[in-house]
Amino acid sequence: MATKVVLWILLCLFAIVSLVSAYQAPERRQFREEAQQCKLDRIRARPPSRRIESEGGITEAWDEANEEFQCAGVAAFRNIIRPNSLSLPKFHNSPMLAYIEQGEGFLGLNFPGCVETYEARSAQVSRSSRRIHGDKEEDKHQKIRRVRRGDMIVVPAGTVHWCYNDGGQDLVIVAFMDLNNDDNQLDLRVRSSYLAGGVPREARRGSKSDDIVNIFSGFNQELLAEAYNIPLHLVKKMQEERGSGLIVKCDEEMAFMTAEEEEEELSASPFWRRQEESNGLEESICTARVVHNMNTQREADVYSREAGRVNILNQLKLPVLRFVGMSAEKGHLFPNAEYNLHWSMTDHRLVYVIDGEAEIEIADDYGNQAFKERVSRGNMFVIPQFYPSFARAGQDGFEWITFKTSNQPMKSPVAGYTSFFRALPLQLLEQAFQITTAEAQQLKQTRRQHTFHTFLSSLNHN
Amino acid sequence: MATKVVLWILLCLFAIVSLVSAYQAPERRQFREEAQQCKLDRIRARPPSRRIESEGGITEAWDEANEEFQCAGVAAFRNIIRPNSLSLPKFHNSPMLAYIEQGEGFLGLNFPGCVETYEARSAQVSRSSRRIHGDKEEDKHQKIRRVRRGDMIVVPAGTVHWCYNDGGQDLVIVAFMDLNNDDNQLDLRVRSSYLAGGVPREARRGSKSDDIVNIFSGFNQELLAEAYNIPLHLVKKMQEERGSGLIVKCDEEMAFMTAEEEEEELSASPFWRRQEESNGLEESICTARVVHNMNTQREADVYSREAGRVNILNQLKLPVLRFVGMSAEKGHLFPNAEYNLHWSMTDHRLVYVIDGEAEIEIADDYGNQAFKERVSRGNMFVIPQFYPSFARAGQDGFEWITFKTSNQPMKSPVAGYTSFFRALPLQLLEQAFQITTAEAQQLKQTRRQHTFHTFLSSLNHN
Amino acid sequence: MATKVVLWILLCLFAIVSLVSAYQAPERRQFREEAQQCKLDRIRARPPSRRIESEGGITEAWDEANEEFQCAGVAAFRNIIRPNSLSLPKFHNSPMLAYIEQGEGFLGLNFPGCVETYEARSAQVSRSSRRIHGDKEEDKHQKIRRVRRGDMIVVPAGTVHWCYNDGGQDLVIVAFMDLNNDDNQLDLRVRSSYLAGGVPREARRGSKSDDIVNIFSGFNQELLAEAYNIPLHLVKKMQEERGSGLIVKCDEEMAFMTAEEEEEELSASPFWRRQEESNGLEESICTARVVHNMNTQREADVYSREAGRVNILNQLKLPVLRFVGMSAEKGHLFPNAEYNLHWSMTDHRLVYVIDGEAEIEIADDYGNQAFKERVSRGNMFVIPQFYPSFARAGQDGFEWITFKTSNQPMKSPVAGYTSFFRALPLQLLEQAFQITTAEAQQLKQTRRQHTFHTFLSSLNHN
Repeated sequence: MATKVVLWILLCLFAIVSLVSAYQAPERRQFREEAQQCKLDRIRARPPSRRIESEGGITEAWDEANEEFQCAGVAAFRNIIRPNSLSLPKFHNSPMLAYIEQGEGFLGLNFPGCVETYEARSAQVSRSSRRIHGDKEEDKHQKIRRVRRGDMIVVPAGTVHWCYNDGGQDLVIVAFMDLNNDDNQLDLRVRSSYLAGGVPREARRGSKSDDIVNIFSGFNQELLAEAYNIPLHLVKKMQEERGSGLIVKCDEEMAFMTAEEEEEELSASPFWRRQEESNGLEESICTARVVHNMNTQREADVYSREAGRVNILNQLKLPVLRFVGMSAEKGHLFPNAEYNLHWSMTDHRLVYVIDGEAEIEIADDYGNQAFKERVSRGNMFVIPQFYPSFARAGQDGFEWITFKTSNQPMKSPVAGYTSFFRALPLQLLEQAFQITTAEAQQLKQTRRQHTFHTFLSSLNHN
Repeated sequence: MATKVVLWILLCLFAIVSLVSAYQAPERRQFREEAQQCKLDRIRARPPSRRIESEGGITEAWDEANEEFQCAGVAAFRNIIRPNSLSLPKFHNSPMLAYIEQGEGFLGLNFPGCVETYEARSAQVSRSSRRIHGDKEEDKHQKIRRVRRGDMIVVPAGTVHWCYNDGGQDLVIVAFMDLNNDDNQLDLRVRSSYLAGGVPREARRGSKSDDIVNIFSGFNQELLAEAYNIPLHLVKKMQEERGSGLIVKCDEEMAFMTAEEEEEELSASPFWRRQEESNGLEESICTARVVHNMNTQREADVYSREAGRVNILNQLKLPVLRFVGMSAEKGHLFPNAEYNLHWSMTDHRLVYVIDGEAEIEIADDYGNQAFKERVSRGNMFVIPQFYPSFARAGQDGFEWITFKTSNQPMKSPVAGYTSFFRALPLQLLEQAFQITTAEAQQLKQTRRQHTFHTFLSSLNHN
Repeated sequence: MATKVVLWILLCLFAIVSLVSAYQAPERRQFREEAQQCKLDRIRARPPSRRIESEGGITEAWDEANEEFQCAGVAAFRNIIRPNSLSLPKFHNSPMLAYIEQGEGFLGLNFPGCVETYEARSAQVSRSSRRIHGDKEEDKHQKIRRVRRGDMIVVPAGTVHWCYNDGGQDLVIVAFMDLNNDDNQLDLRVRSSYLAGGVPREARRGSKSDDIVNIFSGFNQELLAEAYNIPLHLVKKMQEERGSGLIVKCDEEMAFMTAEEEEEELSASPFWRRQEESNGLEESICTARVVHNMNTQREADVYSREAGRVNILNQLKLPVLRFVGMSAEKGHLFPNAEYNLHWSMTDHRLVYVIDGEAEIEIADDYGNQAFKERVSRGNMFVIPQFYPSFARAGQDGFEWITFKTSNQPMKSPVAGYTSFFRALPLQLLEQAFQITTAEAQQLKQTRRQHTFHTFLSSLNHN
């Protein structure tokens, strides 16, 4: 009987080994013989997946490890900065486009090597409680920009930036990172380096990724004291993880000098022209224009009284985009209007819903439906390169912002004035779709609008 | 005895666990501590691995997941279009070079936003059976190009293209895709998006990759009807999977207007010059020259009465190549002639055999033989960057086309006029190979031909 | 009882299967849902990990599969060439920067297609033992460069190069490869292709990676004889694995013609200017300047009588760097001087210690200490992009060379004249660090030096 048992055992063992091998085989084969592949058959509209509460506001992050985010190499987060609060200075491992969804404030972008061109009498603005008498020296610093709702801000990789809300309402910023950009030689992970503050240990929940302390914590205190030529107790203050987190509430209101925006825009473009002839980047980046308002109705690039409008931001409008390899688009569809079926020839797109609702459909290259959802305020979703997509606004219209991973984006519409239907000969449409000449003419001649059209007018023909 | 059995079992279990661990260990280690590595020690000449039969022809594809194809990031397919048949409109996720191996026809390349610059009276050419009376409107469409044997066509990523065979014989097109190109931000998989047609379900064999339906199938029928402003039954026709597949037989012969080729070539280059000064891509791509004939003997770049000729196509001859980052070479070796030992300094090469046979040898960086095969008509093989290779034509000569993943290809020949042997001082050759001055002179001074030479003449010196 | 045993077995089997599944689960999840990630929390200073002894010297290599090397896509090796020895001709799969740490010699860089512009009477210099009488022909070859201690040499990908030591002491070369460079379309592994020599079989130890034979070994002897039009016995000599390895001792001293270095430097830059207007690369690369001395004190870009100096080599000094996408820096810190805390905005850096010692600290983006070591002569370590780092020289000072993976490197210092502290308004520093106005002024106003400062002076303020 023992023999029988042993035989049983051997049989079972054999079964297991087969099972284990079978289990592993597809994985291994995939590694070796199948193409490197994005899993994009199930795209989802996503709310932020992580939330960090700070004293002066909230940071919400979309997980860059989501399949479609990872495939497109993009990441995103949203900062809500309360009045009189400061989003602490930090820098990222990729260039970033940040859109001011709500409120207004001051933005600091510090380019290393640029001159401190703004002067103020520091004593006037310092905190009275800590003021040191006789301290009347002037404070010099780099240009600080005034930003408001609708502004798109370009932040090059590794550049320190901070934002202060001096308005009466919350300042909401939605930021997009292009991790797959040439300027990031590291991995496809968001790496945010804070220069002050940090999330205190008790506020972290298990996950290592919440483990944010400022970069000074990684250094020896005595080394830092020498490097900065400051007393040790000051270094300790700098390293301290305060309960205030990543956005701090300020003791007193701050006011910064800024020049008029109009002047900035006028002076920026000739400076940049010089840059194109390849003089040192260090000189001209200091005066580059990095903010552009996307809400200006008179600057709309696509405009229809019935259907809505789109403002496009590309390298021709904001030349610094040429160097960061990204661009953006802000659109507003009126109720029930539609955005034409089209695909992007050049880039992945990350869409953030600012207001309203829309029915979105995205198909993949096999003609399968990869996405079909009603998206609403605060949702974010990826439209992969070459994937045809289509949007129809809901009852209250649809307002969105699209971030693109190319500085020279091109799309190919299926219907409308510039579509491929119009570009094809009638005969060819007849043969390709096996339709009559009249039907082919219908495909070619209706919908002359380039980008979108109203839903109501289309019902007439259905 | 039961104890004995249990002991046996435990021993076996221990053995399995060890076995499983051992099985996994190398995989894991590879993931962590070994360099990202291409397995290129066994390159093979490959016939197409997949075949899709359509009503109007055959599509054959090389599997891009083959180790050396995947490593080089390239893919290829061959279309055989029967007379009076149409390869349906589609676009791909990477730029493509397509070579007309046989036959002639019409090529459509539709750039979005370009004006419809060709006009024809549509009623004259429409199918009489379906003609609608009173329909005398002119049909406008984008330029259609006439292509013939020997033409190389450049198709940018995401650009809709189609091909119609109006000749008397099969039209054979060999196409090469550079998946690793900057213009493809997706994965290293071929993604072909059809705008009409599709492989019907019954014709598919298990594998998901045969599952090709046109992109309209991914969308809601009512949405499409509205988007195109067309009746629902027409949408259904567009989505239909017909038995005709990817290449359809046309009901009646089609004829398209085309301008003379000579005019096209003359006008193209000044337009492009403007492009280099970075005005909008959309304007100039419309008039870019995208077809070049590789068979013109008087344009041969390397020519020997005894050995053969090579026609090189680079960005200086066809400026649009500058933007797609690829180039090509067509060669013809006479019987027994040899192509010099050389390596590519800049790019991977995919070689397709048009006619004849050759003995090919490729070595890797360790001096191992990676490839040694007699290749013949229809074979395709990869020559990886930096891998030295050598070819000797068979009894009937050797005709081939090489696709390259760089727009500025450079090769380094070992022998011949521009070789490194010629570039080295005599002394150095003596020391490096431990040979006499006379032998070193022999290495330097024979074989003055740059690219190839006849086999017969070489026998004299052996 | 048998039933009991079988039950036991099934339980155990179940346990194993669970165990195996659990074992695999994290791996699989990582593959799917976590971001592609560099493991950079433990950077180490590394001596070379491999050593190949040759007749004429020693080749030491750093393993490119080390986590931080692989992440940065860099590799390095050091060649020690004894007097009257020759490092055999070879080429690599990525562009390379090579620094002459010690000694002097002749450098050959052979660009294919460039003309043989140097002529010498070959008989004068050939080995007398093998001299063939009547052989008075002139020997023509490409330019040979004289190199000496402090020279940085740029070697484009796939370019054959060799080096001969004609001096009295060992010639030591430290070379850096940027495997992640656009010019390498292969994998992240070092691929060195030798054109002569090789490591003989008996000298290899198991590992396949020591398996270096020259590229001719991968080819059929008869084919080679025909290709070169040389006798078979000469081909055999070329393929031979000699005991001499990768660096050979020469039978007699060699002397090569070289022009004066001053002339070369003067003539180089106007030639290159033409290149920028995109004429053929082949023409101008022949006359490009590829050597720059980093030791010239009067060319120091950062200089302090008390602290030390830094020589920067970028594309403005050596235009060929624009095409290879790399740059370098050579620095010398005096005893106890410090290099300011800073991060690189553009590139990974590979630091090689030439002399002395230093205490180095590197922090990651989470504020963790990634590196804290005392490095000394011969050590090499990676500073990843965006990682803040800090150096303090030891008692004997610190001399180093830094290789960078960008042709336009930018760093962002924390302290000093161009630091972000200076760029920020006083108020902001107060709020960010919760410090007094006086403390904020201390942060802004001390340490006006840009790059480094002496340790002694800093003690005054501690």
